Amino acid sequence: MNQEVNIQALSETAVVDEASVQPFPGSEKIHVEGSTPDIRVPMREISLADTGGDFGVEKNPPVRVYDTSGPYTDPSVEVDVRKGVPDIRSGWIVNRDDSEELIEYSSEFTNERMEDVELAKLRFDLKHRPRKAKAGKNVTQMHYARQGIITPEMEYIAIRENMSRAQAVELGVAGDQHPGESFGASIPSDITPEFVRSEVARGRAVIPMNINHPEVEPMIIGRNFLVKINGNIGNSALGSSIEEEVEKLTWGTRWGADTIMDLSTGKNIHETREWIVRNSHVPIGTVPIYQALEKVKGVAEDLTWEIFRDTLIEQAEQGVDYFTIHAGVLLRYVPLTAKRVTGIVSRGGSIMAKWCLAHHKESFLYTHFEEICEIMKAYDVTFSLGDGLRPGSVADANDEAQFGELETLGELTQIAWKHDVQCFIEGPGHVPMHMIKENMEKQIEVCDEAPFYTLGPLTTDIAPGYDHITSGIGAAIIGWYGCAMLCYVTPKEHLGLPNKDDVKYGIITYKIAAHAADLAKGHPGAQLRDNALSKARFEFRWDDQFNLGLDPDTARSYHDETLPKDSAKVAHFCSMCGPKFCSMKISQEVRVFAAKHGTDISAIGDEQVVRMIDVEAEMKAKSEEFKASGSEIYQKV
Amino acid sequence: MNQEVNIQALSETAVVDEASVQPFPGSEKIHVEGSTPDIRVPMREISLADTGGDFGVEKNPPVRVYDTSGPYTDPSVEVDVRKGVPDIRSGWIVNRDDSEELIEYSSEFTNERMEDVELAKLRFDLKHRPRKAKAGKNVTQMHYARQGIITPEMEYIAIRENMSRAQAVELGVAGDQHPGESFGASIPSDITPEFVRSEVARGRAVIPMNINHPEVEPMIIGRNFLVKINGNIGNSALGSSIEEEVEKLTWGTRWGADTIMDLSTGKNIHETREWIVRNSHVPIGTVPIYQALEKVKGVAEDLTWEIFRDTLIEQAEQGVDYFTIHAGVLLRYVPLTAKRVTGIVSRGGSIMAKWCLAHHKESFLYTHFEEICEIMKAYDVTFSLGDGLRPGSVADANDEAQFGELETLGELTQIAWKHDVQCFIEGPGHVPMHMIKENMEKQIEVCDEAPFYTLGPLTTDIAPGYDHITSGIGAAIIGWYGCAMLCYVTPKEHLGLPNKDDVKYGIITYKIAAHAADLAKGHPGAQLRDNALSKARFEFRWDDQFNLGLDPDTARSYHDETLPKDSAKVAHFCSMCGPKFCSMKISQEVRVFAAKHGTDISAIGDEQVVRMIDVEAEMKAKSEEFKASGSEIYQKV
Repeated sequence: MNQEVNIQALSETAVVDEASVQPFPGSEKIHVEGSTPDIRVPMREISLADTGGDFGVEKNPPVRVYDTSGPYTDPSVEVDVRKGVPDIRSGWIVNRDDSEELIEYSSEFTNERMEDVELAKLRFDLKHRPRKAKAGKNVTQMHYARQGIITPEMEYIAIRENMSRAQAVELGVAGDQHPGESFGASIPSDITPEFVRSEVARGRAVIPMNINHPEVEPMIIGRNFLVKINGNIGNSALGSSIEEEVEKLTWGTRWGADTIMDLSTGKNIHETREWIVRNSHVPIGTVPIYQALEKVKGVAEDLTWEIFRDTLIEQAEQGVDYFTIHAGVLLRYVPLTAKRVTGIVSRGGSIMAKWCLAHHKESFLYTHFEEICEIMKAYDVTFSLGDGLRPGSVADANDEAQFGELETLGELTQIAWKHDVQCFIEGPGHVPMHMIKENMEKQIEVCDEAPFYTLGPLTTDIAPGYDHITSGIGAAIIGWYGCAMLCYVTPKEHLGLPNKDDVKYGIITYKIAAHAADLAKGHPGAQLRDNALSKARFEFRWDDQFNLGLDPDTARSYHDETLPKDSAKVAHFCSMCGPKFCSMKISQEVRVFAAKHGTDISAIGDEQVVRMIDVEAEMKAKSEEFKASGSEIYQKV
Repeated sequence: MNQEVNIQALSETAVVDEASVQPFPGSEKIHVEGSTPDIRVPMREISLADTGGDFGVEKNPPVRVYDTSGPYTDPSVEVDVRKGVPDIRSGWIVNRDDSEELIEYSSEFTNERMEDVELAKLRFDLKHRPRKAKAGKNVTQMHYARQGIITPEMEYIAIRENMSRAQAVELGVAGDQHPGESFGASIPSDITPEFVRSEVARGRAVIPMNINHPEVEPMIIGRNFLVKINGNIGNSALGSSIEEEVEKLTWGTRWGADTIMDLSTGKNIHETREWIVRNSHVPIGTVPIYQALEKVKGVAEDLTWEIFRDTLIEQAEQGVDYFTIHAGVLLRYVPLTAKRVTGIVSRGGSIMAKWCLAHHKESFLYTHFEEICEIMKAYDVTFSLGDGLRPGSVADANDEAQFGELETLGELTQIAWKHDVQCFIEGPGHVPMHMIKENMEKQIEVCDEAPFYTLGPLTTDIAPGYDHITSGIGAAIIGWYGCAMLCYVTPKEHLGLPNKDDVKYGIITYKIAAHAADLAKGHPGAQLRDNALSKARFEFRWDDQFNLGLDPDTARSYHDETLPKDSAKVAHFCSMCGPKFCSMKISQEVRVFAAKHGTDISAIGDEQVVRMIDVEAEMKAKSEEFKASGSEIYQKV
């Protein structure tokens, strides 16, 4: 091989991104143990100040939140980017005794790369050998589930998903939750390991976890669980470095990415991917056709089943957890895109469409689909059936091409399930609000409830530069309707390559969409965090309000712009209205009044009015105190 | 009066904000004339490049968009902040012969202020006298509408609202629009002056336009029209200057604010307001109780009907177009808020609640409501019936207090309508997605279809610093369901005072929400702009894509970050995938193929395959040209 080495190798001084390993303010990394000590489910516990003063005296219990930031925020783990993150699943995998270590890689391409001395400096120093199912064995979580086996992964997931509900029960507020229903399927009030198993067995949820990626903290994607989000990273012909890609991974998961897709299309993506997988505690997805295309120098027509097959095996043995496969792009659907405003916008879709037209036959993805299933089940790689013909504009939403392909994806789902291979379905893209429901309902119907995974959708096309927002709206809605995972869109969509800030904006926007959907679906206990934050806001516990938010740093810095002093963090008013106009303050007076006199308005007499005035006088005195102690907080900066 | 003068007077060198008067790129300000030459409806016309090269040869007609930026972006008008914006309505108002100029102001407070020499340097140099209805006359647009009169304002509005539809008809694409329906009320395919009249007569829409604000470019708020957005400005005890407030006004309307609310709570708000109204071409709303409270030094209990009444007249004679009046806060609802997580969060609501409790009687807003109507109809001030008990957290959404108050607002609507006074209803606030529909439906029902005007709603409380997004989601949904106007929320909500960037972020986010709602509701022709932008995107007309967007500046700068050269603006690929992976490019090849060979896939033979390969070769050649002409565009910056 005479491979160009145009990606920057990891520098000798490279360390894990400083910003990604900072502990979250007011938070502690905790682990909840399962039935065995090796099931240790990570959570972030946010400590809260006591309620005090006029608000009465009350302890505010800490709030536990779902934590995707992995070992990077665990002070007891020092991650070395050259060694990767801790292996937590190998024991479980080995115990099942249905897979084995291989002497050498099964992919020709991998073996060529391994022998190329020029690549040594780019290579992750891998200590383990690849694993594969023993002959005749199927190592998918779906296969176990269908045999009635509750794996440690399933138990781990149940603890993780049930966390908010468990807290709500503990705090006696569980009854506040509305009964969840997500278009026909009910979310149980208690998420048990058995429920996880049954959903995976039914195909309504997937656990994307390759046996070659034992570093993954188990998670689940399905509409009866918390809505998940994906962040995309990856180099391109326009450049990047291994360091940058690993940094995007740690940065993205810090802010909430549940999975990461490596969409690299540049050079040396084999080596880049190894670094990403080894440093990732979340499932990694890829689109193997991108790399296959690189192998044929970008000429789509030159793609063959053999090259593609070798690419699947190459990536499966590295530990990729799910593959986007555009097997639904059939010859007959391609001409349906010709009259569209924006034709075909999926890269994978357009590559396959070109191949189909050039060869005048169905793609090897479709014709070899059962062989692909055989590969998937040997490593437990999950299908993400790609929507190669998704609309690229609201004008093209829900058209014949899109829905035609969706029907085919439904057929392929049944084939995957026949092999006990896990499977979810990709969706659009660009869909105006009134057409989102039809999209979701049709997917549930034709794909027999396999989880849906959509990009956005963007609800309008008139705001380039703000497509995280145009699509965040659609994402929240489709999440509520039952979409299981939302692929983020950054502000740079359609315009350029996202930088670190863009990645964060995209992730936070999608975390908002996913959580808004969880609330609307009634995921057990989801509202706990909202209520804790709202209570902190009402009681002027500023630090608690910041720390309970998705982005404490930004909230704190915005507050500091107007009221920068520390004293303002305990001020019983804020910068928007000043002390006199503070409705929360006045409202608290109403509450004090009601507490003393009950809520029967007819009981209000002169004495009570006097009391109200007294309260007011007290509040005024307090306000004077603040003025005296730091009058500069009244001035705008 | 010994009024503190702590607001900064307009500096001697003050000019209209430079950034707000820049023409939009590729755009021209045009005016469409109505049945008489004084009806000149402003629009922004965006010129587009021709389609060319592989995409065939085609002229792309210019796209006209709704324009709220007013005379500030009209090169034929030079706005002098000291003189205000042009008067366009006085002729129509005088012609109706039902109002008269007053010798002096009817407000005691105003007259005191006018006599205060200390205030001279703060004062706008007003050239006209206030106007008021002649005795026994009613000058509201609703009054005219109910008499069957189509006013010039109504005709102006019909042209403005029907613009997209008119273009769609002209371009022969009108049939592409889906039939619009907004929860029971149908949007007609053609918006005529008579339709505008009938909606105003029915109370289903309002035209907020005080006869003392003849500078307003007529606009309408109602669920069978384009969804509108409001931006808030205003000084506070923490400071600001007249210049800053006028700048926020021009900046906010530049990006799309349809109305502006002046929520000033600081000092000298009378003088500040005059500057705002005189420089505003959009309706101005206020919350008069804020100023009334200043007049009693912030002691809510000291408020009286007399002080409030004088404040209404003071502001009506300045030209305020709509008043938020929290007349629905009844004594019996107040205790219902005591057990809420966040009590009362409306400033007006909490002031009135405190007053009611202290006096143990219903507020003067409620008991004097008919007298308020008399004032409103003498100037055509529109009611914005305030939701003083709106929820301040998702925990408190749709509760007894909120819905109780809403019922009262419904009763007050009927009283306003009895007086032919225009009226719309304010709504929440914080509402999770699954509870939004109930909110909208209940409002339509109990307020008999009076327009709804909501703040957001925020769909989750866990993202301080991103509440433009948490609320933009709710705003888009409630707009789709029939909410007529959306009050923006900036990223600083709950945290601090918005700066100019925050105002822009808030406005753009809400413009997205409003437009997404227009698409979903099927407003005639709304999709025209989306389609034009998508076509430009597909054809790599980068400049057209930027210019058609809500924020051309940001889109262009994001693109420049990765591909900064001018040559990239005509590149037939973009930075995200590079030339080889460009799905749009491949997709265009499919289209060229289909155009040459029809869409019957069975016709594809060897010759056609050869043709495909030829096209590919051509594209490759083009790609090489680009490489040769500016290879630096392949490098990330």
